[in-house]
Amino acid sequence: MLHEQQTLTNTELLQWYDAVRQRTVALTHGLSAEDMMLQSMSDASPTKWHLAHTSWFFETFVLKPYAANYRVYNASFEYLFNSYYDSIGERHPRPVRGLLSRPSLEQVLAYRRYIDDAMQTFIDTQPTGASITSVITTGLHHEMQHQELILTDIKHALAQNRAAFKADCRSVSSAAPEAQASHTTPMFSSFPEGTYWIGAEPNGFSYDCERSRHRVFCNAFALSNCPVSNAQWLEFMAAGGYQDPTWWLSDGWSYQQQHQWQAPLYWQKIDNEWFELRFDGYHRVNLSAPVCHISYFEADAFARWANCRLPTEFELEVAAAQNPLQGNFAESNHWHPQPKTPHTGLQQIYGDVWEWTSSSYAPYPDFNPEQGALGEYNGKFMVNQYVLRGGSCATAQAQMRPSYRNFFYPHQRWQFSGLRLAH
Amino acid sequence: MLHEQQTLTNTELLQWYDAVRQRTVALTHGLSAEDMMLQSMSDASPTKWHLAHTSWFFETFVLKPYAANYRVYNASFEYLFNSYYDSIGERHPRPVRGLLSRPSLEQVLAYRRYIDDAMQTFIDTQPTGASITSVITTGLHHEMQHQELILTDIKHALAQNRAAFKADCRSVSSAAPEAQASHTTPMFSSFPEGTYWIGAEPNGFSYDCERSRHRVFCNAFALSNCPVSNAQWLEFMAAGGYQDPTWWLSDGWSYQQQHQWQAPLYWQKIDNEWFELRFDGYHRVNLSAPVCHISYFEADAFARWANCRLPTEFELEVAAAQNPLQGNFAESNHWHPQPKTPHTGLQQIYGDVWEWTSSSYAPYPDFNPEQGALGEYNGKFMVNQYVLRGGSCATAQAQMRPSYRNFFYPHQRWQFSGLRLAH
Amino acid sequence: MLHEQQTLTNTELLQWYDAVRQRTVALTHGLSAEDMMLQSMSDASPTKWHLAHTSWFFETFVLKPYAANYRVYNASFEYLFNSYYDSIGERHPRPVRGLLSRPSLEQVLAYRRYIDDAMQTFIDTQPTGASITSVITTGLHHEMQHQELILTDIKHALAQNRAAFKADCRSVSSAAPEAQASHTTPMFSSFPEGTYWIGAEPNGFSYDCERSRHRVFCNAFALSNCPVSNAQWLEFMAAGGYQDPTWWLSDGWSYQQQHQWQAPLYWQKIDNEWFELRFDGYHRVNLSAPVCHISYFEADAFARWANCRLPTEFELEVAAAQNPLQGNFAESNHWHPQPKTPHTGLQQIYGDVWEWTSSSYAPYPDFNPEQGALGEYNGKFMVNQYVLRGGSCATAQAQMRPSYRNFFYPHQRWQFSGLRLAH
Amino acid sequence: MLHEQQTLTNTELLQWYDAVRQRTVALTHGLSAEDMMLQSMSDASPTKWHLAHTSWFFETFVLKPYAANYRVYNASFEYLFNSYYDSIGERHPRPVRGLLSRPSLEQVLAYRRYIDDAMQTFIDTQPTGASITSVITTGLHHEMQHQELILTDIKHALAQNRAAFKADCRSVSSAAPEAQASHTTPMFSSFPEGTYWIGAEPNGFSYDCERSRHRVFCNAFALSNCPVSNAQWLEFMAAGGYQDPTWWLSDGWSYQQQHQWQAPLYWQKIDNEWFELRFDGYHRVNLSAPVCHISYFEADAFARWANCRLPTEFELEVAAAQNPLQGNFAESNHWHPQPKTPHTGLQQIYGDVWEWTSSSYAPYPDFNPEQGALGEYNGKFMVNQYVLRGGSCATAQAQMRPSYRNFFYPHQRWQFSGLRLAH
Repeated sequence: MLHEQQTLTNTELLQWYDAVRQRTVALTHGLSAEDMMLQSMSDASPTKWHLAHTSWFFETFVLKPYAANYRVYNASFEYLFNSYYDSIGERHPRPVRGLLSRPSLEQVLAYRRYIDDAMQTFIDTQPTGASITSVITTGLHHEMQHQELILTDIKHALAQNRAAFKADCRSVSSAAPEAQASHTTPMFSSFPEGTYWIGAEPNGFSYDCERSRHRVFCNAFALSNCPVSNAQWLEFMAAGGYQDPTWWLSDGWSYQQQHQWQAPLYWQKIDNEWFELRFDGYHRVNLSAPVCHISYFEADAFARWANCRLPTEFELEVAAAQNPLQGNFAESNHWHPQPKTPHTGLQQIYGDVWEWTSSSYAPYPDFNPEQGALGEYNGKFMVNQYVLRGGSCATAQAQMRPSYRNFFYPHQRWQFSGLRLAH
Repeated sequence: MLHEQQTLTNTELLQWYDAVRQRTVALTHGLSAEDMMLQSMSDASPTKWHLAHTSWFFETFVLKPYAANYRVYNASFEYLFNSYYDSIGERHPRPVRGLLSRPSLEQVLAYRRYIDDAMQTFIDTQPTGASITSVITTGLHHEMQHQELILTDIKHALAQNRAAFKADCRSVSSAAPEAQASHTTPMFSSFPEGTYWIGAEPNGFSYDCERSRHRVFCNAFALSNCPVSNAQWLEFMAAGGYQDPTWWLSDGWSYQQQHQWQAPLYWQKIDNEWFELRFDGYHRVNLSAPVCHISYFEADAFARWANCRLPTEFELEVAAAQNPLQGNFAESNHWHPQPKTPHTGLQQIYGDVWEWTSSSYAPYPDFNPEQGALGEYNGKFMVNQYVLRGGSCATAQAQMRPSYRNFFYPHQRWQFSGLRLAH
Repeated sequence: MLHEQQTLTNTELLQWYDAVRQRTVALTHGLSAEDMMLQSMSDASPTKWHLAHTSWFFETFVLKPYAANYRVYNASFEYLFNSYYDSIGERHPRPVRGLLSRPSLEQVLAYRRYIDDAMQTFIDTQPTGASITSVITTGLHHEMQHQELILTDIKHALAQNRAAFKADCRSVSSAAPEAQASHTTPMFSSFPEGTYWIGAEPNGFSYDCERSRHRVFCNAFALSNCPVSNAQWLEFMAAGGYQDPTWWLSDGWSYQQQHQWQAPLYWQKIDNEWFELRFDGYHRVNLSAPVCHISYFEADAFARWANCRLPTEFELEVAAAQNPLQGNFAESNHWHPQPKTPHTGLQQIYGDVWEWTSSSYAPYPDFNPEQGALGEYNGKFMVNQYVLRGGSCATAQAQMRPSYRNFFYPHQRWQFSGLRLAH
Repeated sequence: MLHEQQTLTNTELLQWYDAVRQRTVALTHGLSAEDMMLQSMSDASPTKWHLAHTSWFFETFVLKPYAANYRVYNASFEYLFNSYYDSIGERHPRPVRGLLSRPSLEQVLAYRRYIDDAMQTFIDTQPTGASITSVITTGLHHEMQHQELILTDIKHALAQNRAAFKADCRSVSSAAPEAQASHTTPMFSSFPEGTYWIGAEPNGFSYDCERSRHRVFCNAFALSNCPVSNAQWLEFMAAGGYQDPTWWLSDGWSYQQQHQWQAPLYWQKIDNEWFELRFDGYHRVNLSAPVCHISYFEADAFARWANCRLPTEFELEVAAAQNPLQGNFAESNHWHPQPKTPHTGLQQIYGDVWEWTSSSYAPYPDFNPEQGALGEYNGKFMVNQYVLRGGSCATAQAQMRPSYRNFFYPHQRWQFSGLRLAH
């Protein structure tokens, strides 16, 4: 997956490895062994499982094939912690990952330490610039992806349980609604028609699905300067957005009716005011912040109602490539979208919320999956999912680049997903 | 929907109207009133329902709004025969259309005659070139779409019933397998890279989803000269294509495992030989004919196995636009794909089988849905479906053009759907 | 199944055979071939299927094993029209009986005539009092059971379709509510404690499940003189009977909540008044008539609310045995329960509505199933079903006797089922 | 629920209270907080939930209504740990009890201690022989029922996880099959016909469902001296018992086919030999021990195959009442059925395995549910469940008596359930 990456020394690689691996465990502070076992839906996994699976990844793709005299930690872990690699063999069924009380958290952490020791020895002793570095790099990017899932999955799990978050939501309320509101018409930035180059630059890490770099013709287009805000979303709700099939895709309307959606996920009406669940409990929705935890179906309905459309993934990449890679990422430890700034012009193009695009997740021209089991990483998911761009407040910044393609099913909304308008 | 169509005189329009409407009824010859009530799955509808719904379309979109003094035939039909137009109002649930023993077939045919009489009066007396002609034209194209569904739906329904087709499949067998086989490597035709115009030409009828005409950049590409044949499909099956997850999209593999697919729909192994169901009973599969009744999932798996890929809808449109619009359409009354000809070069680009593309059904730039309820015709289905191109042996030729976009879910296979390889 | 029946002459048997068989067809007058194909749920079967299955019964259990030189009418019918006899072989799946457009109604009627001809020859030429008479007798009782199902199943099927029954329900309304009401406290008849003989008398036809005749000890008990009336049911509804879990079995409450029951099946509120569907359309519910189309769950909830209980099947048999076998049966052609009479004392113990009992359908002591496939007639259904007693307005009188045990699942309510209180 | 119980002094009651409560916690030794969170199906509950719910029971039915100045421990526990009492109010949905990572195990144990302190004070200070003693007694019987569920539920949960039990099953195998086998024909004990008294004796604790004591007439009957053994079950399996619908109830056959049953729950074939899961891992099935973990459907099928029948609950009560109340109960800490003894005559009538009866769980004559919410304890479950008698190796002996009625659905088999033959 490493595509002509600049060379890291072994020491640099090891330093990076340690930082990423420690960050993963650090994210779980405050969670008990019991919390880390929770699986609240089959889309999500227990924290403990993420901790084990990311270690399994290094064991399976680095240590077992390449480390001399490596001794497998526990043979049953190959079965338990394989996520979806058919080429690796049978695996524990995803929907019952929550039934793994054993191995215990303690044992999983011991497994992590065992893998880390073996990886350190391995990296120390490999020839500088060895080709296996690219697999290790993939493993670290893979681990950063799971860091994000650790956050979104545990948020979903604890949200199922009345007792898990602090109940007293009034005291932590955000600034007064008046101060926040900004019902100004959204401003747009324009981009000229033309043939644009899309996809990963040749230097630096990228996943196979970002390649090959190729040309796409775009009509002239415009993007709203900010992601759609909670204030705008409340207008949509007030206008009956969830009650009128006119704005909805047919499948979206069915799904929404069946699941009785009336607002974004994690919103709750208390005494006639809307609150949202954050990691520190319920808060009044912040009107200036981007709406999040919405599905593709909702994003698309909003865009139609607003007389706009969702951008394509190419349009967002064009815009992203022209902007500095900075924003509210996981490293800022907010783990929630922040209000926009008074700054005019395009903003929040990175971080805060993943932005749904109208682009189905599909192979680029000359798509060439990785060799071996890693070929299952992306390619086999290229149906019925939609691309999201830009990263969120739960994404590691180091993971992001203009060509990064995230993808989810159109009904899913437990990620920090929002939208930006286009026309 | 009529986009600057050349002007028809009232007489010509009436002639065309009569021809299309009579053709619909002619397709049902040989079916009893009981047969015409069958609904074997919620994707499909009873023949009788198609007969009524196509009449309802003219009543709803032409007669009620435009015909002076028009008297509605039966108020309950608005509820019973609305397909999916939310703006029109409540409707009978799709999955239980098979419970409509009443109105009887006889009453539905009387309804058709009533509508035809009213339409004839209406067309006769409208000013030449009236704008309403475009809605009538849409109604006729709509009716041709339902002609195809009448064929595919009744095929599916009768296939559920052992007794419905003639049992004696030996006597009708096709030519000896030896004579048919042509295990030659598929030949490809090449197309240069470039920016191509895609979408409906300004003159002539088109649906809103074919517009606006816009530019698409394509890398150089190649298309196999023929659709994938039954001979090629048997090789895929012999190579374990249905047993090996390597070639499959993840969702496709799950679906296939759950539904135990081992061959295309309507194939049956009898005494160790593969037979397929046609309208006149079971026949040995014809090795030189295009495979059909396969899903997107199967088409995609085949393409990967063959070390190729599915074409995009743009690639097929580029090819189609360079070829004469002719082929094995419904008018030839085969209602089954025919063997390829010895002719070299691209063939069967029209007719025989719909060809799956890797393109998700999505709006074109500046997509502008029809006004009113007809805006629900296409736009609200633009999620999770894939585009098919070229028409099939069950499609009316008059309905086809290079820019025509058909669309189905990736698991569906009761249409005459096949594939052409690209690389 | 014939248990020491009095001897019929061949002529008498033939006369009876003809009467029962003709009655079955007579019940279908007014139904089209399309109506007779309807299957609205998997519990019910199409009329056409009933017509064929009852003929299949004679073919399978009489003609094929016993009639010299009998030629099977159509080999595929063995598969299509076997209901549930595993010992006979594979069969068409029950939930898709509605997909049998072929054989046509016409062919099924021809099949009936073919069977009738063969049966007439067979009966004519058998030795008087032959043991096979008992199987023929069973076949006729079996056919009478299906006559009842023809009525209840087509009522359910047509009820799914707005257009099937006449819409104008006002003109056919029953007598004014004032005239009907009789909100008097229900009167009870008492029965002394004792050991009672239960089960079929040795002479006359009975099913295996009614045997052996055995002793049951009953405490003293009392039965309400009439089945619970619609007036009483409306009181239950007004008292919040469908909203309060207190009165309900736990499984009943779950089922009711899931299916949103608010009234008996086929009741509909029109302009704030309750109407019920009868064979001739919607009518105001008749306050003096027994409530019907209720489930065991509802019957049990009502009884608790009324501070009573459901009777056991033994208690109802004790009462029935002391009463003349007469009532509102199918022969009276009302096909709907009739109001009670001014007569005091126990009434409507036969006919009008089947009465739910608290007795699980279970084998009697020394239960001895019939030999061969007929052993599957009753025994294998003896779990999770509850016994109903007394027959209904859709039951043939000739089929009834004090020991007759009908049985259904506790959630089912498309039969003419009601209840009588006990304490 | 206490029905004229002999009087306990406060000290005796307190001693008993302490013993039962400590026993509950003792049963969880060896389980981690993670194990105690497992819920492997909605029929079962997490250990932690059982620990909390049994405390909630005393808080709800004793402390809150009767203890002066009692301060509720945590208001949210009323919602979280109510099992099924509609009269108490809303409750956490049963199927997601496994999502309760919070409160933690530690907090639940603190809750138990809080309740125990309050209960000790309450009992110490109540007047001797106070009527509230009967509710406390019920609470202790209730807790013993949950002790059994703790064992059966955790067995099921850990069984889902390959890693949870020791894998090395060879070393712990039981005695050689030859030594164990006893393929002798089962011996039966006979009981004369007569009118028997059934139900709870007036003195001593009993549940409402065991009352009133009433007379039942039984024909002469015979019971097999031992429960059906594993050796007998293997014969049934070898005879194709799981493959032949002949022996099965229709619903049982459907359920079995759908769930692919081939043997009792927890049996696994390893190298062509049958092993069963016990609390200490997999062992060869012991041929002389009673078969267990079978459903009613399987028990009934076996009985028919053996040309016998299941006993009624009355027959088993008649036999039990004539035998001393002793056996392999939970106190012996085997938690698995033990082999029969060489002793002739009726044995294992208590303990080892619950014995399925053909009796539907139904109210006895003059059934009078407890007042208040405790009235929901038994009565509302009296549909579609079947009575089991005699207690098992996981039942507390103190909980047992001849009239005790346990009940489960006919498809359930995670309890220690077996059968005894009757004829």
